[in-house]
Amino acid sequence: MQQFLVEAKKTSRHISTLSGEVKNRVLNEMADAIIEHCDYIINHNEKDMENGRVNNLDAALMDRLLLTGERVMGMAKAIKEIATLKDPVGRTLEGWITEDELNIQKVSVPIGVIGIIYESRPNVTSDTAALCFKSGNVCVLKGGKEAEHSNKAIATILRNVLDNNGLPQNAISLLPDSSREGVAKLIKEDKYVDLIIPRGGEALIKYISKNSSVPVIKHDKGVCHTYIDKDANHEKAISISINAKCSRPGVCNAMETLLIHKDVAAYILPPLHEAFMQNDTELRGCSNTREYIDIHCVSENDYDTEYLANILSIKIVKDLDEAIGHISKYGSGHSEAIISENYSSITKFLNEVDSACVYANASTRFTDGGAFGLGAEVGISTNKLHSRGPMGINDLTTFKFKIYGNGQIR
Amino acid sequence: MQQFLVEAKKTSRHISTLSGEVKNRVLNEMADAIIEHCDYIINHNEKDMENGRVNNLDAALMDRLLLTGERVMGMAKAIKEIATLKDPVGRTLEGWITEDELNIQKVSVPIGVIGIIYESRPNVTSDTAALCFKSGNVCVLKGGKEAEHSNKAIATILRNVLDNNGLPQNAISLLPDSSREGVAKLIKEDKYVDLIIPRGGEALIKYISKNSSVPVIKHDKGVCHTYIDKDANHEKAISISINAKCSRPGVCNAMETLLIHKDVAAYILPPLHEAFMQNDTELRGCSNTREYIDIHCVSENDYDTEYLANILSIKIVKDLDEAIGHISKYGSGHSEAIISENYSSITKFLNEVDSACVYANASTRFTDGGAFGLGAEVGISTNKLHSRGPMGINDLTTFKFKIYGNGQIR
Repeated sequence: MQQFLVEAKKTSRHISTLSGEVKNRVLNEMADAIIEHCDYIINHNEKDMENGRVNNLDAALMDRLLLTGERVMGMAKAIKEIATLKDPVGRTLEGWITEDELNIQKVSVPIGVIGIIYESRPNVTSDTAALCFKSGNVCVLKGGKEAEHSNKAIATILRNVLDNNGLPQNAISLLPDSSREGVAKLIKEDKYVDLIIPRGGEALIKYISKNSSVPVIKHDKGVCHTYIDKDANHEKAISISINAKCSRPGVCNAMETLLIHKDVAAYILPPLHEAFMQNDTELRGCSNTREYIDIHCVSENDYDTEYLANILSIKIVKDLDEAIGHISKYGSGHSEAIISENYSSITKFLNEVDSACVYANASTRFTDGGAFGLGAEVGISTNKLHSRGPMGINDLTTFKFKIYGNGQIR
Repeated sequence: MQQFLVEAKKTSRHISTLSGEVKNRVLNEMADAIIEHCDYIINHNEKDMENGRVNNLDAALMDRLLLTGERVMGMAKAIKEIATLKDPVGRTLEGWITEDELNIQKVSVPIGVIGIIYESRPNVTSDTAALCFKSGNVCVLKGGKEAEHSNKAIATILRNVLDNNGLPQNAISLLPDSSREGVAKLIKEDKYVDLIIPRGGEALIKYISKNSSVPVIKHDKGVCHTYIDKDANHEKAISISINAKCSRPGVCNAMETLLIHKDVAAYILPPLHEAFMQNDTELRGCSNTREYIDIHCVSENDYDTEYLANILSIKIVKDLDEAIGHISKYGSGHSEAIISENYSSITKFLNEVDSACVYANASTRFTDGGAFGLGAEVGISTNKLHSRGPMGINDLTTFKFKIYGNGQIR
């Protein structure tokens, strides 16, 4: 393992200096190779599907695992789109002349070797490999065991393209030891690995955060809130609430808890109830809520929970401060929205809520690299440092200072 | 400990929203209070000095520990300077309108609760507390045991000023349990602590990096290199080399290894040798170097070492690639310089050397917040993510996205 990572680190020096032109040409060849070897990928995917059936994986997992011709074409298309992105390397972020007449340029550079740990969906393999390659990084990929054959097939195709172009194949690697022990070793090799990105269940992310000596950018759960203020426009409040919960309940930017100002509860709860009934949402309310509408009782535990399902907690609060306090106690720092026409309430909410994305009068469902206009998305960071919220390709770079002198000493 | 950190986290919500005006007024009062209570501080410092004498601390450590009237005035002056800095909170870093007509603003915000672990010099207590307060963060300070009384006296004065202004005293705290176990607990409390900054010896930093589940920004050692290219201006090569090593050998941006292109070794080594002799530098050279000048033999181990003393390793390399390879193998990613008049060599060196600061024709000694023009310095980060190189007050902030909508759903 260590020798493998030593080599990966060496390769990163090479890959970091490739020109944008070379990288884009290779990416387009990768996309073409994916299309050309569509059957090869699908045949290997069939082995994973067969194992999945033997192991009784649930329907949702089987669906995420499945590759069809259309989905393979989607993978190729995603790589081609990544090729069209502006090169994230070599951007001058700042520049100035010091009192000593040194010319300082703060310039974006690749991070180095990035370990990415993810689950089930095989397209993550090609997406992530392409994003890392485009940003001049070496990636070490550790996908889910259930997608083993699919991931190997995809990686083999991409690595062959590297080889055909005279580039080191280990710029894109699967972790050689994909066991738990392999991961445990990987996250301790801070001399050779510069960043770990875990995407997956809560247990995986907690384990990696607690044990990694390599810096980690987490893609953790989203317990997102919407707060309907006393000065909310009722129409917007209802349509945004329905959208935030029901448009796709299984994703991290979906709302889990709706907070409602006590002064508007009586007016807004009955039509909200009706709208949610039409969307088959299971509502769980605090005792005050249940005075207005007939729904289940919410528990303390619910407020902490990312349902990933069409279930919603509802709580009536006495004012904006109580809403912010509730979010601060139970939120996961992902995305929260206030619905209000009151300038001061909005300002206070956006300033005081400590989350990656804070919305005025819009659905939390917009927390997404694509919706933000960042292009292909690495994920949604729940870290506070380096990257926070939707993580685009620029977040796969760091920076260095280039200092141009003329003999200066100090 | 946990209850203490829960309270610190709560306070951070309050402190994060203070206006620049309030923060600057309080900082100026803190500086005045330091001056007013100069005797109080010096009396407590005398207890630490007494303990130091009993425990036979070495002269350098005793000097770092000592507070004089002048040094206390220096602490007050530093706080007043921090008050004059532009508020790092609330800067709009980027902003754009999406296709959905959402107005997205990426805005700098405080990080939250920052734990800072440092050694000996008591002025770090007031500097760090002021920098954290100015940037809207709560700080939990853990200074060296040898400076215990001085640090307590300084913190007490600053906390009284907070109290006089109706602000929570725990915005500036000393870690209640300052034992090893106390630190071990602190770095595991990722729910309440947002960042750990360790400044100190290698063992401390390694221990914290390996064990912290809170993100860490390291201030690690500097094994800095200067490379004299075959196309170097000899005068600049000599004056920069002398400055990089001898102006202050005990700091992290001092040069530890000098690399010299084989084609110029015969010309440049004799005058370099003479100049270093005049500065009492102990030189240790590779076998090729020792063919030109009569100096000690360098060991493999030397190349890895931050001497923090007036000692220098010298190695002759066959070309620029070997120089970059040597730096990549032995360097600590801090600061490296090339001395050359050759455009292509400089470009290659600055692009391929993976360090926080890479210099063309200037001394590595410029790696410093003050010299960079960043104002008061938090330290020099050897991290690659979030902050790299000289760390100014802006690096004590993170960001959030404020998104202004008008009823948008997705």
